[in-house]
Amino acid sequence: MLAVGKELLIGRTLNTNAHWVGRRLANMGTMLKEMATIDDELGEISAAFRAAVGRSPDFLIVMGGLGPTPDDMTLKGLALGMGVGVSLNKSALELIKEHYASRGIPDVELTPSRKKMAMLPKGSTPVRNPVGTAPGVRMVEGKTVVYSLPGVPSEMKSIYKESVEPEIRGRLGRLYRRYITLKVEGVFESTLAPGLVKTLEKHPGAYVKSHPRGSKEGVSRLEVDIAVVGEDRRRVDSEGMQIAEELLGILRRAGGTLKASRGMGPRRNS
Amino acid sequence: MLAVGKELLIGRTLNTNAHWVGRRLANMGTMLKEMATIDDELGEISAAFRAAVGRSPDFLIVMGGLGPTPDDMTLKGLALGMGVGVSLNKSALELIKEHYASRGIPDVELTPSRKKMAMLPKGSTPVRNPVGTAPGVRMVEGKTVVYSLPGVPSEMKSIYKESVEPEIRGRLGRLYRRYITLKVEGVFESTLAPGLVKTLEKHPGAYVKSHPRGSKEGVSRLEVDIAVVGEDRRRVDSEGMQIAEELLGILRRAGGTLKASRGMGPRRNS
Repeated sequence: MLAVGKELLIGRTLNTNAHWVGRRLANMGTMLKEMATIDDELGEISAAFRAAVGRSPDFLIVMGGLGPTPDDMTLKGLALGMGVGVSLNKSALELIKEHYASRGIPDVELTPSRKKMAMLPKGSTPVRNPVGTAPGVRMVEGKTVVYSLPGVPSEMKSIYKESVEPEIRGRLGRLYRRYITLKVEGVFESTLAPGLVKTLEKHPGAYVKSHPRGSKEGVSRLEVDIAVVGEDRRRVDSEGMQIAEELLGILRRAGGTLKASRGMGPRRNS
Repeated sequence: MLAVGKELLIGRTLNTNAHWVGRRLANMGTMLKEMATIDDELGEISAAFRAAVGRSPDFLIVMGGLGPTPDDMTLKGLALGMGVGVSLNKSALELIKEHYASRGIPDVELTPSRKKMAMLPKGSTPVRNPVGTAPGVRMVEGKTVVYSLPGVPSEMKSIYKESVEPEIRGRLGRLYRRYITLKVEGVFESTLAPGLVKTLEKHPGAYVKSHPRGSKEGVSRLEVDIAVVGEDRRRVDSEGMQIAEELLGILRRAGGTLKASRGMGPRRNS
């Protein structure tokens, strides 16, 4: 993922978009591999784009910089990175007109600023934005499907759910994930470490990670996350539970107490 | 900045650290140039480190992955990227012992997991962690000063304030910043765009960016940020105010209403 926008770099805006997409991808059984945040500059955008597609991911999601103002230059930067120009895309312009019409302005003046949102890299396709003006854009570079989405969270989420996620799901097939969190008190992370290594050796495909949560009245607090992904729902569930039981045994023998857990019960949604 | 940790990529943890550091740097009159989030993998860490120092920034701040568990492998990854090994650093080990002593455990057993937190890249220096176990690490690669800090926010902030920020400030000298936000209703971003371009042409060093904030009962809402940085406080203040007045004029002529503003008054802290 590539997030474009100075507001993210100067602490003006918290990047909740990356968090939201990362969680949705993880819930589907796949993963956001890398995320970069860059400034609104043509050279930065094209260089970061080249670096990202150079690693041949299945998908690259670019966020931000699609608006009507000149500081929004993501599409120009992507076009530069692809070695093509931008040109007025008629379908994109239609989508923009439709948006204004739906807001009660059927004959909006197509000023250069409004047309700018329809200036797409050659060979790309506009993607309907159900809640905002600037359409998303889909393009293909090498092995990678690239989506460029607006940075406004409601617009990004709306396009992601309607267009991006279905395509990723289609490529991925049906995967199941069991995600368990154990909240423990009274064990240092450094005490848990050796047992955690052994557990991971027995379950090489699983993800186990401990997060220190400070201490309260001198008692250490830890959260341990466990994730198992696979095509077979029963095996995914049973391996997740087995790892949780093993780690709970280790934690208890080290003097720890389980204060709460998440994801241990029966599966809520299949 | 390089943030290391799968929890950031799977939507488990929101990267508030980057936001916090970005804001502090901006307040000092400088800027976070680029931010990358990567997975806990040796190859990923060393490659991202090489790519970052290859752009010769003054500072590179690496966050996360300093704990006692084997999935925390930032220092090994940085050492790999620098082409050196890791070795037990005696000063780091002393800092770790002091931390446990301060928690009422004067003779803590130095297990391999605890010693791991003192395994530093050769040639690097530990940095005191006022609130947690794992020390920060300072190293120099080419023109770049590299700080590796824990991902736990309280620990990161504490080391940043005590050690990192003073060094950055020393390098930077004294800069002033005027940051103004105008909250406006009743103007589309696309209507504002041409006037915004003219204002930016008159003030080439300034930062002006508009952020659409959706609409309420059919009325568009916008926030416009203005930032000016420089060594002369009076000039910074007057240029910031001048830009704000120019943009307000444009916004009002386009039918907009100023609903609120921030940073327009006299300077609070010099």
